[in-house]
Amino acid sequence: MPELRKDPIIGRWVIISTERGKRPGDFPSVETVTPGGFCPFDAGNEDKTPPEVFAFREPGTEPNTPGWRVRVVPNKFPALRIEGPLIRRGEGVFDKMSGIGAHEVVIENPDHGSALCDLALPQVEEVVRAFIHRIKDLRKDERLRYILVFKNHGEQAGASLEHSHTQIIATPIVPKRVMEELNGARQHYDLKERCIFCDIVLQEMEDGIRLVTENEACVSLTPFASRFPFETWLLPKWHSSRFEDMTDSQITSVADLLLETLLRLRSALNAPPYNFIIHTGPCQDPELPFYHWHIEIIPKLTKIAGFEWGTGFYINPTLPEEAARYLREVSLDAAQAGGDLCPKH
Amino acid sequence: MPELRKDPIIGRWVIISTERGKRPGDFPSVETVTPGGFCPFDAGNEDKTPPEVFAFREPGTEPNTPGWRVRVVPNKFPALRIEGPLIRRGEGVFDKMSGIGAHEVVIENPDHGSALCDLALPQVEEVVRAFIHRIKDLRKDERLRYILVFKNHGEQAGASLEHSHTQIIATPIVPKRVMEELNGARQHYDLKERCIFCDIVLQEMEDGIRLVTENEACVSLTPFASRFPFETWLLPKWHSSRFEDMTDSQITSVADLLLETLLRLRSALNAPPYNFIIHTGPCQDPELPFYHWHIEIIPKLTKIAGFEWGTGFYINPTLPEEAARYLREVSLDAAQAGGDLCPKH
Repeated sequence: MPELRKDPIIGRWVIISTERGKRPGDFPSVETVTPGGFCPFDAGNEDKTPPEVFAFREPGTEPNTPGWRVRVVPNKFPALRIEGPLIRRGEGVFDKMSGIGAHEVVIENPDHGSALCDLALPQVEEVVRAFIHRIKDLRKDERLRYILVFKNHGEQAGASLEHSHTQIIATPIVPKRVMEELNGARQHYDLKERCIFCDIVLQEMEDGIRLVTENEACVSLTPFASRFPFETWLLPKWHSSRFEDMTDSQITSVADLLLETLLRLRSALNAPPYNFIIHTGPCQDPELPFYHWHIEIIPKLTKIAGFEWGTGFYINPTLPEEAARYLREVSLDAAQAGGDLCPKH
Repeated sequence: MPELRKDPIIGRWVIISTERGKRPGDFPSVETVTPGGFCPFDAGNEDKTPPEVFAFREPGTEPNTPGWRVRVVPNKFPALRIEGPLIRRGEGVFDKMSGIGAHEVVIENPDHGSALCDLALPQVEEVVRAFIHRIKDLRKDERLRYILVFKNHGEQAGASLEHSHTQIIATPIVPKRVMEELNGARQHYDLKERCIFCDIVLQEMEDGIRLVTENEACVSLTPFASRFPFETWLLPKWHSSRFEDMTDSQITSVADLLLETLLRLRSALNAPPYNFIIHTGPCQDPELPFYHWHIEIIPKLTKIAGFEWGTGFYINPTLPEEAARYLREVSLDAAQAGGDLCPKH
């Protein structure tokens, strides 16, 4: 059974995933991508994954058979498990709880070779709809406090399978970084009665120097205090703390701008590995006036790592204003034609 | 001029190091290690680094010539610069300040092929003494609030030169993670009038299950809520918030246990890349009753990265108790003989 443990100094929870139990000889990870091998996410291999919990399918096709366009399955090696009671315990100065939660995989398309940014807009829309569908279903379990949707693209960004997919982890705690964002945003709201993210969006749209691209409902930009070169955030222009509360037209706008932003990053940076993380409000919370959901996209361009983990201190060698300019200057036609640039691992 | 920028949501400062100015074509980094090439840190190449600010040398040898055992030089490509005034400015909702600070390199020995854990105890002691000397010198500059001593060992851990070295960065702000530790530790002290780290050391010495090794003055252990497999901390058994306040015999104990811990990690994990970070109190603060300096050692065994950066949420596939057991079971004789296991990049 996985276990959640709390750091007694700074209060950060960590999943100790004992069932993945790695011993010294298991590093580097056995999960390393093996290109060209068997892929459980390909169409036709539906019986090689746990049974699907959601799919967009062609009419008349059966669950766990081909005919799907987007397919969501439980992770075969879950970091958390849905079964069992949520038990909280102390151990001297330490606190722990049982590793209750969910760990799912959104397979974004049946074609092994297509990355998310190779898909047509309606397909990307369905991927976003699949995220929303799963969030709405998982939040019914009141033990779960947060639902984390994130993507590791490319081996260097932590992907263990090359077939394009996104992961969903639902946890009985709110992750530390999200809690910090909530607290910081609440302070700003208490002081000014305005959402800090709305303030940022307005200022960045006026300034323009850190804007990457925008459409009627969304904007993508390189944050003022970017931790990483070419770090890019996508934010809705309307205020909303809950990703899953979008209307149909808002979903289209988000999918459109996510696709365009990923294409610009791929073209400017020669198809980098990257992570994206959807930052949204805690799943049991109502709409919050002070928080604003957004997507953080982080290309994995630099190797420096443990130092940042250990200190919360970042050195970024690229001016965010220059990164934004490079991303603006990308020719979208060329980017769309650049599908073969996308790394397969 | 480098610039410090503050994230307006969670208050984290980031160094934007414009003089390293990386453009899209510069990734992957040009700083990648080139084994076997020219090394500015080798004995005889003293004129290829900025002039030394400190060294342990053989009697009668001149600065910036061979004859040194440990040598400290300014970083040739500093993330922060010591010259100029500390200017603080706002830019709408954003805050920034000039990138004042210091960035130095501690070259741990003149021999290109020796890692820190290949050195004899007296040499490791001199490395620790060099850290202390530089901290005491840098803290005289009252603009500086924090002095960060950290090591990137191996290319995968962010090292850009293979010759064994440690970096020192002095900043006009306290890094976020350190501030969180200070705040968390202060809360515990306010509640219990005890140092949380002292509590942890006592409990771990009684329990024994997460102990790696100890000597009369120090202990190394795998923390209860380890973020990473085989994450190991070294803590003094005596209470002290300031790394630089050690007595001679305490320096010997720390060097001894650091050396032994690194040897155990090298032997158990087949010479992994790793980072270590010395966590000590802010450099202008007096001795603090609630904080306790320590060294965090993080072997770089897993690839997963951006997700953790983005969320503060960690999944550790190895039980800390099992990691400690593996590290305890290492035969020290075999570990010491294993010098050739140490990766040269």
